Amino acid sequence: MINIGLIGYGYWGPNLARNFNSNDRVDLSVICDFSEARLKAAAKLYPSVRLTNNAEELFENNSLDAIAIATPVSTHFELAKRALLSGKNVWVEKPITDKVEQAIELIELSEKLNKVIMVDHTFIYTGAVRKIKEIIDKGDLGDLIYYDSTRINLGLFQQDVDVIWDLASHDIAIMDYFMPFKKTAVSATGTDYYGNDIVPKSLLTVYMENNTVGHINVSWLSPVKIRQTLIGGTAKMILYDDNDPSEKIKIYDKGVKLSPTREELYHIKVQYRVGDMYAPRIENIEALALETDHFADCILHNETPITSAKFGLEVVKVLVASKESLKLRGAPIEIN
Amino acid sequence: MINIGLIGYGYWGPNLARNFNSNDRVDLSVICDFSEARLKAAAKLYPSVRLTNNAEELFENNSLDAIAIATPVSTHFELAKRALLSGKNVWVEKPITDKVEQAIELIELSEKLNKVIMVDHTFIYTGAVRKIKEIIDKGDLGDLIYYDSTRINLGLFQQDVDVIWDLASHDIAIMDYFMPFKKTAVSATGTDYYGNDIVPKSLLTVYMENNTVGHINVSWLSPVKIRQTLIGGTAKMILYDDNDPSEKIKIYDKGVKLSPTREELYHIKVQYRVGDMYAPRIENIEALALETDHFADCILHNETPITSAKFGLEVVKVLVASKESLKLRGAPIEIN
Amino acid sequence: MINIGLIGYGYWGPNLARNFNSNDRVDLSVICDFSEARLKAAAKLYPSVRLTNNAEELFENNSLDAIAIATPVSTHFELAKRALLSGKNVWVEKPITDKVEQAIELIELSEKLNKVIMVDHTFIYTGAVRKIKEIIDKGDLGDLIYYDSTRINLGLFQQDVDVIWDLASHDIAIMDYFMPFKKTAVSATGTDYYGNDIVPKSLLTVYMENNTVGHINVSWLSPVKIRQTLIGGTAKMILYDDNDPSEKIKIYDKGVKLSPTREELYHIKVQYRVGDMYAPRIENIEALALETDHFADCILHNETPITSAKFGLEVVKVLVASKESLKLRGAPIEIN
Amino acid sequence: MINIGLIGYGYWGPNLARNFNSNDRVDLSVICDFSEARLKAAAKLYPSVRLTNNAEELFENNSLDAIAIATPVSTHFELAKRALLSGKNVWVEKPITDKVEQAIELIELSEKLNKVIMVDHTFIYTGAVRKIKEIIDKGDLGDLIYYDSTRINLGLFQQDVDVIWDLASHDIAIMDYFMPFKKTAVSATGTDYYGNDIVPKSLLTVYMENNTVGHINVSWLSPVKIRQTLIGGTAKMILYDDNDPSEKIKIYDKGVKLSPTREELYHIKVQYRVGDMYAPRIENIEALALETDHFADCILHNETPITSAKFGLEVVKVLVASKESLKLRGAPIEIN
Repeated sequence: MINIGLIGYGYWGPNLARNFNSNDRVDLSVICDFSEARLKAAAKLYPSVRLTNNAEELFENNSLDAIAIATPVSTHFELAKRALLSGKNVWVEKPITDKVEQAIELIELSEKLNKVIMVDHTFIYTGAVRKIKEIIDKGDLGDLIYYDSTRINLGLFQQDVDVIWDLASHDIAIMDYFMPFKKTAVSATGTDYYGNDIVPKSLLTVYMENNTVGHINVSWLSPVKIRQTLIGGTAKMILYDDNDPSEKIKIYDKGVKLSPTREELYHIKVQYRVGDMYAPRIENIEALALETDHFADCILHNETPITSAKFGLEVVKVLVASKESLKLRGAPIEIN
Repeated sequence: MINIGLIGYGYWGPNLARNFNSNDRVDLSVICDFSEARLKAAAKLYPSVRLTNNAEELFENNSLDAIAIATPVSTHFELAKRALLSGKNVWVEKPITDKVEQAIELIELSEKLNKVIMVDHTFIYTGAVRKIKEIIDKGDLGDLIYYDSTRINLGLFQQDVDVIWDLASHDIAIMDYFMPFKKTAVSATGTDYYGNDIVPKSLLTVYMENNTVGHINVSWLSPVKIRQTLIGGTAKMILYDDNDPSEKIKIYDKGVKLSPTREELYHIKVQYRVGDMYAPRIENIEALALETDHFADCILHNETPITSAKFGLEVVKVLVASKESLKLRGAPIEIN
Repeated sequence: MINIGLIGYGYWGPNLARNFNSNDRVDLSVICDFSEARLKAAAKLYPSVRLTNNAEELFENNSLDAIAIATPVSTHFELAKRALLSGKNVWVEKPITDKVEQAIELIELSEKLNKVIMVDHTFIYTGAVRKIKEIIDKGDLGDLIYYDSTRINLGLFQQDVDVIWDLASHDIAIMDYFMPFKKTAVSATGTDYYGNDIVPKSLLTVYMENNTVGHINVSWLSPVKIRQTLIGGTAKMILYDDNDPSEKIKIYDKGVKLSPTREELYHIKVQYRVGDMYAPRIENIEALALETDHFADCILHNETPITSAKFGLEVVKVLVASKESLKLRGAPIEIN
Repeated sequence: MINIGLIGYGYWGPNLARNFNSNDRVDLSVICDFSEARLKAAAKLYPSVRLTNNAEELFENNSLDAIAIATPVSTHFELAKRALLSGKNVWVEKPITDKVEQAIELIELSEKLNKVIMVDHTFIYTGAVRKIKEIIDKGDLGDLIYYDSTRINLGLFQQDVDVIWDLASHDIAIMDYFMPFKKTAVSATGTDYYGNDIVPKSLLTVYMENNTVGHINVSWLSPVKIRQTLIGGTAKMILYDDNDPSEKIKIYDKGVKLSPTREELYHIKVQYRVGDMYAPRIENIEALALETDHFADCILHNETPITSAKFGLEVVKVLVASKESLKLRGAPIEIN
């Protein structure tokens, strides 16, 4: 049984608590938050869990095997470092840190101390993303050519980071999971409509080796919620619509053709789409439940999580470069 | 009655012919194409129209009031110039030219000769775009903040220009119609996946005065056809989905709020959308029919078309800048 | 505080338990089920709730104010009667009973004993249904003409009742809530494809006074889930699509016109739809939470629930008649 | 070359004219309509076709090989009979006649005179219906169990027949094409909301041999256009959505299971759908073009059309029975 403590019971923490609580191999022992109201809410649902507003208490608690950190990104580094140094395994919300050097330091520290750090890139554990990964790994799509995602939301969710940090971080992780290619440069555009240095709507392009590209459109200023991702291969292409309850993944029997003939071009013009389509059934398991299981496995068997600190570092590199490019109205920033 | 001659009976020309033929004030007299097969197809449908493979014949024909040019963009300038100089009014496919200077020369020539040039930016004459323009002009959206469009297609349609010239030209025109703001810089990203110097998939950002921005996503490499445009205002926002047969325009009672409170942020999070939605009925008139009428009006009453050569020039400026930015992986190119 | 005991912790019971548990005015004290596995699952989530496999214990428990019955329909009558006679208020799953006479007996008993019986027709408490009711009550739709619903599902959910009892019972309740008209006759069609006397797919027509009609299509044999309801009025019509996460209700500015002219007919033909459309925002509150509140109110203030036993009786009348009509391949059965 | 004359240039006639005109083996020689305005419209598009308001002229014209009849159903019988007797092959709009006896008389007459009669059940020639037929014939669906269709429209299109004659006639034809089973009884419900003896909204059930059933929902009183057809087999099921431009046919890897276990039932409950889905590409050929070709083939090679007069008779039988059942509020009418 893994004893876990949770720091942060705000927007996402309650989901962690619920999944930790219902997992047979995990025991949620402590919840920490600075807000009395939130602790009270936790008490109603988890009467036997200890509550505190003092994070220090968790670090000092020797019965804890792991600490989950669901606090703002700017606090991740300090809390995760303290947790590792106090001998705990770590579950930390995405992105792992807001600086590249900090992520590297956490990687090194966890390796030295032989502790697990897992970054909660939840999407990687969804049925849809795992199914697409499975299809890609079988080679069905041929060579991967592009990733293209529109992830737009209503309203402003964050006031301390750009929308790229909030929403594109999902796509950067998913893209890296599907196309683990070396990234070469990042271009990001958008403006701070409110004059507050926060960019709430952006286009992001990630140039990668092999002449492959990722295009990501994120926004907090949309009246509707759209979650559409295209993955283009030389043999087939996938449309992944996360809003579609019954057909999240559609696989089209049509790849990116390198040299279509004039007749093919004409034929394409008059068709709405080309090739048959196939929509596999997706397993209906909550991603966090699976992720909790995976975290337990990694701790118990001393394995590296799929969404390891190294995986998280790749995401941070792109995020940091995008911030710089944004200021330069899209000028490309090299990634090495 | 306006006597019109048509040069080019390839992909788009037949649509022009059909609309010219069914308009009460227009008489389609001549069709010119270099392909015998196409002329034969035209003969079947328009037995009384004169056919030729010699464009010169049209310029020399004094009974013609106007010439419509539906040929590849690289030929527009020469053909339009010849048509103007031979005393004809001109209908030319979009974009008007492939060089800024050429568009300017056509503008000056048409003014000097007092002839109409209309650029066939067909979308401007659709019921949906006209309805949105009407809503914007009434002030319903408040101040316009952003334009965001996804226009992705299947297959490769052109082999001589980038996808931005083919597809984003529609959006640049529509955006300019809705938001006639001064453009300051353009950033465009993408790669030539085929190594043939043609970029078939791109993100385009147009920076405009007043801290407003246009974001455009175009592609020939999508397995599905998507046509989704968002127009964001401070009072309301519009979703224009050109694929939706019954509800092309949705107006959301929700604007871009400049400073939401923390409570509003929380409330937003748990809702799929905020505010009521209203979908006005769209008139079901073929855009080209209306455009043909408008062209006739402009000639008969000596008026300037909505999609004038000057309107077309604005589009060319962005297209030309995007080409340069593409080569620099998104570096911003100033527009003056 | 209302002390409540729950009988039945199978498919629906856990939802009741969760809502009772999180309601400030309700105290879930006992859960009863004959299955040890289910009681164990309940224990994990509600460690302080008493568990039993003996329903008798609840009737004898004088500290209980109410008993909720979430068991198969054939057991409702006996359990509800026992609960009333033991001085408890009653929450019972829909349909209230499987015989008309039994529903009448429960109505009379509850009146005599001055206890609340509420039938859990959950849909009546959803944001969408309440919003439509509000629109109807304002008179926006004009005179109501028809109700038309398609409610089709995957797979077989029940093995003891026809699909009409399982799924159409929702529509009969919703229709009665919107159009509380006297019903005159019922026609139901379908066959027992499995030869087991259970009809898993049916069309149901309810003839009502004022020449109004309800048409209901229900099925367990559909590969997809469809929940589409139309409500037709002389002034406007509503499309209520319960699967649509963002636009559940669409109100069309078009009524059932009694005598269209020939020109109107032609115009209608070429349009996809007529009139503007308006989609109001729907409150995102869980129906069961609201219903639990309503139940508490009715007990505390001695009021009659919206979904009273009398309301439930109307549903049973149609269900019973439909069973008879089914056997006669659609022959109409009078309702009085 | 087949010389054809067309009687009726109202709603549907122009579509026939266009397809006859563009077919290489057909020569549209004469168009007949009693309306001068319609003949004038025809003259604009077909300057070389002879126009007349006298149908007699066509019967007497010995150069005609065939006559197409696109007039109201009540006139079909007399016109078709005259055409056959004058030695012409016949294309007649659906339904072939409004009386069973008349359809039988036309069948006998055409056989005696060795002339083709084809009923224009256009849907049978669409890419979607032909693709489904192909899938069924391969046995992919297993045994066919049910047909279920919702075909609802806006507004009133006809003032002389019930909606079942107008819209359900499509479904009866499609169902008979897919499931050519002996029909045993028909139940139809609905009311004449306008008190004019015309029923504009109906449910129709067709009982067939082998315990199979067809359920059809038709309406002219819907604010939206819906075209959803389900075909249920023991091995797979199809959803055919004629409004969907890109995925008209979806084939679900799930059949009607005769005896699901309790575990399967529970699993089904929590899933939106079961089994993978496959959407084949549909050929994008206009149905009328194909049908015109088929008509030409039948005449030239003396073959029986797919939508022969006998095929049309099956449809008329159901229509006539439905009219009787409607008056009896759904009471079943036997078909023999």
